[in-house]
Amino acid sequence: MTKKPLILVTNDDGINAAGIRTLISVMNTIGDVVVVAPDSPQSGMGHAITLNSTLYAEKVHIDNGPQKEFKCSGTPADCVKLAIRELLDRTPDLCVSGINHGSNSSINVIYSGTMSAAIEAGIEGIPAIGFSLLDYSWNANFEASKSYVKTITQEVLKNGIPNGIVLNVNIPNLPQINIKGIKVCRQAKANWVEEFDKRQTPQGKDYYWLTGKFVNLDHGEDTDEWALEHGYVSVVPSQFDLTAHHVIKNLKHWNLNE
Amino acid sequence: MTKKPLILVTNDDGINAAGIRTLISVMNTIGDVVVVAPDSPQSGMGHAITLNSTLYAEKVHIDNGPQKEFKCSGTPADCVKLAIRELLDRTPDLCVSGINHGSNSSINVIYSGTMSAAIEAGIEGIPAIGFSLLDYSWNANFEASKSYVKTITQEVLKNGIPNGIVLNVNIPNLPQINIKGIKVCRQAKANWVEEFDKRQTPQGKDYYWLTGKFVNLDHGEDTDEWALEHGYVSVVPSQFDLTAHHVIKNLKHWNLNE
Repeated sequence: MTKKPLILVTNDDGINAAGIRTLISVMNTIGDVVVVAPDSPQSGMGHAITLNSTLYAEKVHIDNGPQKEFKCSGTPADCVKLAIRELLDRTPDLCVSGINHGSNSSINVIYSGTMSAAIEAGIEGIPAIGFSLLDYSWNANFEASKSYVKTITQEVLKNGIPNGIVLNVNIPNLPQINIKGIKVCRQAKANWVEEFDKRQTPQGKDYYWLTGKFVNLDHGEDTDEWALEHGYVSVVPSQFDLTAHHVIKNLKHWNLNE
Repeated sequence: MTKKPLILVTNDDGINAAGIRTLISVMNTIGDVVVVAPDSPQSGMGHAITLNSTLYAEKVHIDNGPQKEFKCSGTPADCVKLAIRELLDRTPDLCVSGINHGSNSSINVIYSGTMSAAIEAGIEGIPAIGFSLLDYSWNANFEASKSYVKTITQEVLKNGIPNGIVLNVNIPNLPQINIKGIKVCRQAKANWVEEFDKRQTPQGKDYYWLTGKFVNLDHGEDTDEWALEHGYVSVVPSQFDLTAHHVIKNLKHWNLNE
């Protein structure tokens, strides 16, 4: 009998979100599942960690199934730290985060709580994948995502992921019949052009809502944005060594020690 | 007459911290300074942004000098977005963040609000530097930092920084006479081993404080950790394209589309 892999499941939309419920149902077909996820939505939290306040974790039963579940008062990165150090009996074989309600392609990876949970697991040496569906709505339909999530997870368990790398997977918001397959990509050089909606409080004080539009000036056909626009699931191998190794030589010619 | 550069100054310890006051004093000798910084400490916020609540910014006068100052209710990344889109008359020539009270070397770059502000500016195409001193205390002594901050800033203004790159600068907590110079480095493969201090509320409910110790298993002499331990200021060119380009080829051999 082969021992089933231990899979840690987390997300940033909160433990009750439809995306994580779908992810749990898929992972239950692959391994032993422990869920440690935020008790409330944490979107846009980036790689925040809780340094100056306390953390709670509580065993919960949300829907039926063999999984164990804990809700946690912290950020996605906190959930992973707490799971690994306190809540799990042994180091998990895999950590999956998501399925996020909304895109984490291109520059969104930087702001993403979903990906920060995956990166936190990667830092701990655990193979990790962040999954996102390109539909921000709370009642997004995750049916078509299931088979892609399962295929990619099984390939990760079979092949492993090189140390220092986590996978950023985005799934187009299309019926399964219109999804063309899975593409390994690079992160597109696209970004948000923010617009602040400036308003006044009833007392006359200015305040702002952050809004903006997404602009992709990267026309490469090897990017995640290209893949998603053309009906493919995108997989970007992402690293947390941020060093721009190719620039080090250039900077060594600066007059830093005159 | 050469026009002075416009320099945006921010941080994550809050607008009243000694580190940003030092940074402002150095920048006042180089250019026209506008400060947009959080109204309260934001350490460990990573690249969080404020999506679900409002943002305030208010003109303030904290200490004398030619700089303009705004305190902002948001995260460091919010401060940079709001500065660029709403508060500044023109795009700044440079964004500097810090001087952080505490290290942002090696893996700390991932959790760092200081660096997230610099990265946000980098995403906007603005040359940006995050500065950190290896002293977490509120009354840290930033005197020895001043000349290094000035030298690095002037070199950035003279040489520019390649697109997609920001500089992560860490300064050892030593008297100036013991600092040996400035070294261009790569990010060390070091990380935190967390320990959770588990306690009980007076009502008997478990809660946790996040603590941990820093472990460096990377013995390279080209890393930021090595430089700092040996009395050098470290400069790591850091990128926000997280793609592990060298891994893409490897993943293309997986059976993702069977």
